[in-house]
Amino acid sequence: MSTFPTLLDTLKKASDRHLSELVEWLRIPSISSDSSRLDEVRQAAVWVAEKLTNAGLKVEMIPTDRHPFVYAETPAVPGAPVVMVYGHYDVQPVEPIDQWISGPFEPTIRDGNLYARGATDDKGQVLTHIQSVCEWLAAGEPLPLQIKFLIEGEEEVGSESLEQRLPAMRDRLACDCVVISDSSQYADGQPAITYGLRGIATYELKLTGPGQDLHSGSFGGAVMNPAIALCHLMSSMVDSEGRIQIPGFYDRVRPLDDIERDQWKALPQTDEQFAEAVGVDQLFGEEGYSTDERRWARPTFDVNGLNSGHQGEGVKTIIPATASVKFSFRLVPDQDPNELTDAIKQHLKQHMPSGVNWSLLPDHGATGMLASTQSPFMEAASQAIEEAFGVEPVLIREGGSIPIVTQFQEVLGCDCLLLGWGLADDNAHSPNEKFRIRDYHCGIQASAVLWEKIGKLNS
Amino acid sequence: MSTFPTLLDTLKKASDRHLSELVEWLRIPSISSDSSRLDEVRQAAVWVAEKLTNAGLKVEMIPTDRHPFVYAETPAVPGAPVVMVYGHYDVQPVEPIDQWISGPFEPTIRDGNLYARGATDDKGQVLTHIQSVCEWLAAGEPLPLQIKFLIEGEEEVGSESLEQRLPAMRDRLACDCVVISDSSQYADGQPAITYGLRGIATYELKLTGPGQDLHSGSFGGAVMNPAIALCHLMSSMVDSEGRIQIPGFYDRVRPLDDIERDQWKALPQTDEQFAEAVGVDQLFGEEGYSTDERRWARPTFDVNGLNSGHQGEGVKTIIPATASVKFSFRLVPDQDPNELTDAIKQHLKQHMPSGVNWSLLPDHGATGMLASTQSPFMEAASQAIEEAFGVEPVLIREGGSIPIVTQFQEVLGCDCLLLGWGLADDNAHSPNEKFRIRDYHCGIQASAVLWEKIGKLNS
Repeated sequence: MSTFPTLLDTLKKASDRHLSELVEWLRIPSISSDSSRLDEVRQAAVWVAEKLTNAGLKVEMIPTDRHPFVYAETPAVPGAPVVMVYGHYDVQPVEPIDQWISGPFEPTIRDGNLYARGATDDKGQVLTHIQSVCEWLAAGEPLPLQIKFLIEGEEEVGSESLEQRLPAMRDRLACDCVVISDSSQYADGQPAITYGLRGIATYELKLTGPGQDLHSGSFGGAVMNPAIALCHLMSSMVDSEGRIQIPGFYDRVRPLDDIERDQWKALPQTDEQFAEAVGVDQLFGEEGYSTDERRWARPTFDVNGLNSGHQGEGVKTIIPATASVKFSFRLVPDQDPNELTDAIKQHLKQHMPSGVNWSLLPDHGATGMLASTQSPFMEAASQAIEEAFGVEPVLIREGGSIPIVTQFQEVLGCDCLLLGWGLADDNAHSPNEKFRIRDYHCGIQASAVLWEKIGKLNS
Repeated sequence: MSTFPTLLDTLKKASDRHLSELVEWLRIPSISSDSSRLDEVRQAAVWVAEKLTNAGLKVEMIPTDRHPFVYAETPAVPGAPVVMVYGHYDVQPVEPIDQWISGPFEPTIRDGNLYARGATDDKGQVLTHIQSVCEWLAAGEPLPLQIKFLIEGEEEVGSESLEQRLPAMRDRLACDCVVISDSSQYADGQPAITYGLRGIATYELKLTGPGQDLHSGSFGGAVMNPAIALCHLMSSMVDSEGRIQIPGFYDRVRPLDDIERDQWKALPQTDEQFAEAVGVDQLFGEEGYSTDERRWARPTFDVNGLNSGHQGEGVKTIIPATASVKFSFRLVPDQDPNELTDAIKQHLKQHMPSGVNWSLLPDHGATGMLASTQSPFMEAASQAIEEAFGVEPVLIREGGSIPIVTQFQEVLGCDCLLLGWGLADDNAHSPNEKFRIRDYHCGIQASAVLWEKIGKLNS
């Protein structure tokens, strides 16, 4: 491509605008789990649809029962591969709000980072691909491949609409490779390509005891305390080493292979650095596995929220009427979230004390994913990242889940590239989420180079 | 007393005013644990001080570091006993506020009950004694005994100021018997005199894990989850039958004697009635003890509040940075709350996983109490109650704690009468606290008769 060096030059010149556009998008509080935010979530969809329309793409807002998809495509290029960029415009909740240094929807620059909810997860990251395509088109040169964008608004609540519609959209979304930037580099200065993700299964358990809060003096000893029942139940799910105690839980877990274990052992980050980065004295987890093995390739159980009784100032000596817990599992290939739900129900039934009523609400589930590390797309991505970031990427797995990825593989029969421009300490899902501005710009550049490299592959 | 039948008549005629005065007092939101309510707590003290002053008593507001005592006395009566009425003008918090049918500080009558926070615990109950004394004095006749009132404002937060000041106030508070109405009748239609109370020890445990909430995908399996640690720890405190697992916990527990067990077996309420009243399918507790034995004479452990991570709508897959729990024990004679605190610290230390920091905050503690069932005051109270309520009271213990009672016994060397006018389902400490209006008026009448009976005893 004769115009390509010019394009990279253009990208640099446009960097201020690229940043201010991201800031604009981040101002929209598109929290998909908050039913009072329907309008704001929609505004975030409209924002990206307009951005793509203005660049000349054919754009469609596809309504769903909840939050719309934004679909866009560039013209087909016969003989060249088709790539679909997938990302999401919805964001996580912001609590605890008092821990944010600047408002979650008032994007603020500090120390070369842009702070806002969604900065890295995923507005900032998906926008890198949108910017690279927009600039390519603005340069007046046709792209050497066809690019389709699918930007959804329910990723943070389980991608239910997309999951349901995907089979019916198979022809429209047909592609050779899906590109997703919704993960992290391995470490500061060490970019990575992620070839594996964990699955997920999330639940809420509600326990109901007495008809209302009771005086613990008059009733303590006579009535089961739902908060204690909840602690017993959660304690029964996992032992003190982090081994999950639900019968059959590990039956389908695919063991790690020795090649992976050896590759990961060579990765630069030490446990001490990792512990310091997350602010704990000591790491924790299943014996016999390294930290990366535990968080990338072993299933885990976490309690995400506890809620019962008196939480305000001072003492209130009650037996609370109710207690509830949100908990989740990260799964690995080949665990099945539906099987897990059945096993959990069985386990809870066996351990449930008398005197409390219970309901278990499974929220969403997804299986884990493993991509080929040998594809030409992987090679193209590796080269593009090395050109943009100046360092060859390492091949890693990620402990997080992008529930729709496995389904893309299954339904579309495509390859998959997970190119994380973020950093592990970007605080996705936490207060003070950020995206390093340099990584944003390098991501845009890597994306532009990637289109050039993939354009040279045969379809 | 020739004037006595007239006085009972007066009480009946004044009943509307007695009720409207209680309503007035209940409107004042005197939540002692809420540091933003200092003014309102004080207003409640001023209200009762004015009521007593207007009746002609010598009244003093005694300041403390937190909430003042209201002290008042009638003239000494040589040769007759001195009685101190103890009560409190402070109330419990009101959460969960959305479960109140009418506002906690908007006293409302429904079905013969007055609903408001503090209705039974303790404004309504202590006011019965104040009304009886005020009417006696208003009738122009001297009381046949000296009555001292000590109405404090920290009962719901542990009576710390009173505990500290009590030894220095020994002479002023000197009395033959303390009368306290801050408990319940045995059941609807069955009044009771309470001769035993459980002690209490309350705690808050805070666990801190990572520096902030972490993404459970990227970090799950690498970092100890403080909410899980909390569930393990609480689960380790008590077994599934309600037996407390802290080493040495039962060492000092005074066993129940057979006479008590037999008396309690004869009490009319069945487990089925009790379960229905509190809204559970099934009661719960230590094997080998009846329901009354478990709640009156056996120590218990309760979790009063759990707080961690995401509690809002939807899913937030985090490892929470912190988790906290409020928990409490009800103790029996001769357990010591300070010894317990040491044992809990030891137990937590042994069970604490690595990777979390913790702090244990003991809030308040008190030993349990047992009064003589044979005193002439007990006999006088029994007769007074039978005259006012029309039924002979049964002798019971109570599972609740009035931390200062044991200290009155120890410091003042006095007898103690616990005369509960409330009902078990009055929702003390719960939403929709109430006091049956008939019980309020019967309480005033029983109190007036009690002064007459005690006045006839020799000092």
